[in-house]
Amino acid sequence: MFLGKVIGSVWSTQKEAGMENLKLLIVQPIDWKDREGGQTVIAADRIGAGIGEKVIVSGGTPARIVFQNRQVPIDAVIVGIVDSYEVTREQ
Amino acid sequence: MFLGKVIGSVWSTQKEAGMENLKLLIVQPIDWKDREGGQTVIAADRIGAGIGEKVIVSGGTPARIVFQNRQVPIDAVIVGIVDSYEVTREQ
Amino acid sequence: MFLGKVIGSVWSTQKEAGMENLKLLIVQPIDWKDREGGQTVIAADRIGAGIGEKVIVSGGTPARIVFQNRQVPIDAVIVGIVDSYEVTREQ
Amino acid sequence: MFLGKVIGSVWSTQKEAGMENLKLLIVQPIDWKDREGGQTVIAADRIGAGIGEKVIVSGGTPARIVFQNRQVPIDAVIVGIVDSYEVTREQ
Amino acid sequence: MFLGKVIGSVWSTQKEAGMENLKLLIVQPIDWKDREGGQTVIAADRIGAGIGEKVIVSGGTPARIVFQNRQVPIDAVIVGIVDSYEVTREQ
Repeated sequence: MFLGKVIGSVWSTQKEAGMENLKLLIVQPIDWKDREGGQTVIAADRIGAGIGEKVIVSGGTPARIVFQNRQVPIDAVIVGIVDSYEVTREQ
Repeated sequence: MFLGKVIGSVWSTQKEAGMENLKLLIVQPIDWKDREGGQTVIAADRIGAGIGEKVIVSGGTPARIVFQNRQVPIDAVIVGIVDSYEVTREQ
Repeated sequence: MFLGKVIGSVWSTQKEAGMENLKLLIVQPIDWKDREGGQTVIAADRIGAGIGEKVIVSGGTPARIVFQNRQVPIDAVIVGIVDSYEVTREQ
Repeated sequence: MFLGKVIGSVWSTQKEAGMENLKLLIVQPIDWKDREGGQTVIAADRIGAGIGEKVIVSGGTPARIVFQNRQVPIDAVIVGIVDSYEVTREQ
Repeated sequence: MFLGKVIGSVWSTQKEAGMENLKLLIVQPIDWKDREGGQTVIAADRIGAGIGEKVIVSGGTPARIVFQNRQVPIDAVIVGIVDSYEVTREQ
């Protein structure tokens, strides 16, 4: 998984089967110093993440598991909203 | 998933079993400011995406799910044509 | 898998089904010279890795296998704590 | 999938079960302007791709599907030889 | 798959179930000119690769297939030791 910040939403009417009724958010990967890095990711959100919140995003087949047997072609899911994180660095 | 812009089409006659009758588009990943970044991706399109349109691309086994039990060796699929997206940035 | 160093922890209350009771650590990928590189990764830890320890992180469906049939949407797992490693370089 | 150019072949005698009788090619990823980018990939070829040809490479479990139930530990397959591609750019 | 050079070994006592009795090697990705590039990878070796040898590394679920039904959380496997490779470049 990676840490990210929710920065926006995407809407799509014309879409694949299985993409109905999904909230899709734009997530910017960040590091432990909140520095942004890497390409933005579109992730499905089922836990009520809001703009500006820090989230944990999971990808691939492990992420898709939240949709169980439904045929949902989603490869990234917000699996947690971050309460806090603590980083200890020697240098 | 990632945001991309459809920039072209690819044609192939000599191909693997399962690749028949697929429309393959060239997609350039973009960020929320429409800036291009990263290598172009070849994605299957079954929802009528056209050149210049912004799309959502899913990858891996989750994307392949749209082909159900058919033996289609495709690892990237356009799962939505973007109507709009909204990004809120503090800075 | 990749070599990493555990640099922190993340806590999340609002989360997807299957994310309960998991210890999530922040891992910084390192190379054989302990130089850091690449984005930090959030990985589940079930073997007691501590801050500052070097670990081996596995990803994707192979990593998720440690949760067996439970519906855990985790795509990165610490699969080993490094005792030592030895690198032989010609140059 | 990605666009690539076949630049060479690899031979291996000592190998894993399931790797027998596979033609392995070295593929350099290219973009739509034929500019090379990214690390070379080793892909299995079952459709007769030759040196210098442009190909479409699929990866991961979706690509492995061409081997059906055989236990072949291959994560990249040439799924099409490119006849032509057309790119339309506004700029 | 990618081409790599074996540069070292890693040892781990405290590890996940399924990681017992595995030889784990540190592999540096290389290109066809033997130039190193990209982060080092930890891969399981079951075919006797030695330090300094060039190898083919497969990843993800396709690689894990060599462990069959055993619950081994390994996402990278050395699937071949390179005898030779030949690259033809126009320029």
